Amino acid sequence: MNSKISSSESNCPIARGLALLGDEWSMLILRDAHSGLTRFDQFKKSLGIAPTMLTNRLEMLTAENLLERRRYSDRPPRDEYTLTEAGRDCLPLLYMMGAWGRKHRGEGKLTRFVDAETGVDIQPIAIDAVTGAEIGSRQIRMVST
Amino acid sequence: MNSKISSSESNCPIARGLALLGDEWSMLILRDAHSGLTRFDQFKKSLGIAPTMLTNRLEMLTAENLLERRRYSDRPPRDEYTLTEAGRDCLPLLYMMGAWGRKHRGEGKLTRFVDAETGVDIQPIAIDAVTGAEIGSRQIRMVST
Repeated sequence: MNSKISSSESNCPIARGLALLGDEWSMLILRDAHSGLTRFDQFKKSLGIAPTMLTNRLEMLTAENLLERRRYSDRPPRDEYTLTEAGRDCLPLLYMMGAWGRKHRGEGKLTRFVDAETGVDIQPIAIDAVTGAEIGSRQIRMVST
Repeated sequence: MNSKISSSESNCPIARGLALLGDEWSMLILRDAHSGLTRFDQFKKSLGIAPTMLTNRLEMLTAENLLERRRYSDRPPRDEYTLTEAGRDCLPLLYMMGAWGRKHRGEGKLTRFVDAETGVDIQPIAIDAVTGAEIGSRQIRMVST
């Protein structure tokens, strides 16, 4: 896709991220991988995705090193997919996506995410680790290098 | 699109967010809106996007209340687009996307985001506002309601 080519060549780190992660199915596969799914049939069942689409996304995520493929059965040949470091680093992004979805599309039944120890609903927010301030609460400047 | 329909009906807030925001062009338009662009020609120039694609995305983002349309000229008829609250709430998501892009696709020249007051590069991280712990550092449990 043209859009992906231009974004991945951009100097903007947001565009570089989006060149891979600006895709609904890929992000849903990564979400499911974070909740422990590893196998083609598990993803297929969870997502209701067409097999060719799933194959295509798993290939892309493997080629781009967000998932790692490992053969767990030779006869019949079967692979499983686990998150790499780059894949695990999508977790904050998934939670911020969930926070937006909960706030702005939160009608009706909604899965909750709670801290396993305290049982309290988590409230994902993004901060600047340097100042500790919430993103959006202080002025940010872009610098081209 | 089928995928969007099924995701937007999901009980998962991540899937609900992705039904709108799991799209590269839409997120790039929101990024540009955050940096102050408001007009069709500005988005077109910034993104190198085909006019029909841009029209389509601006329609969707307006219909879904992430952007607000305002007519600023009657002759010729011209609209401008500004962020709604739901659109502004995408900012943390954009910064987490940028943090991922910088860490995992950060080769060569890359735009920096600095705190305007201190001049120091910001380091966006996601935390749970309740515990203060970084997302991923404590066990999280999903609860279906």
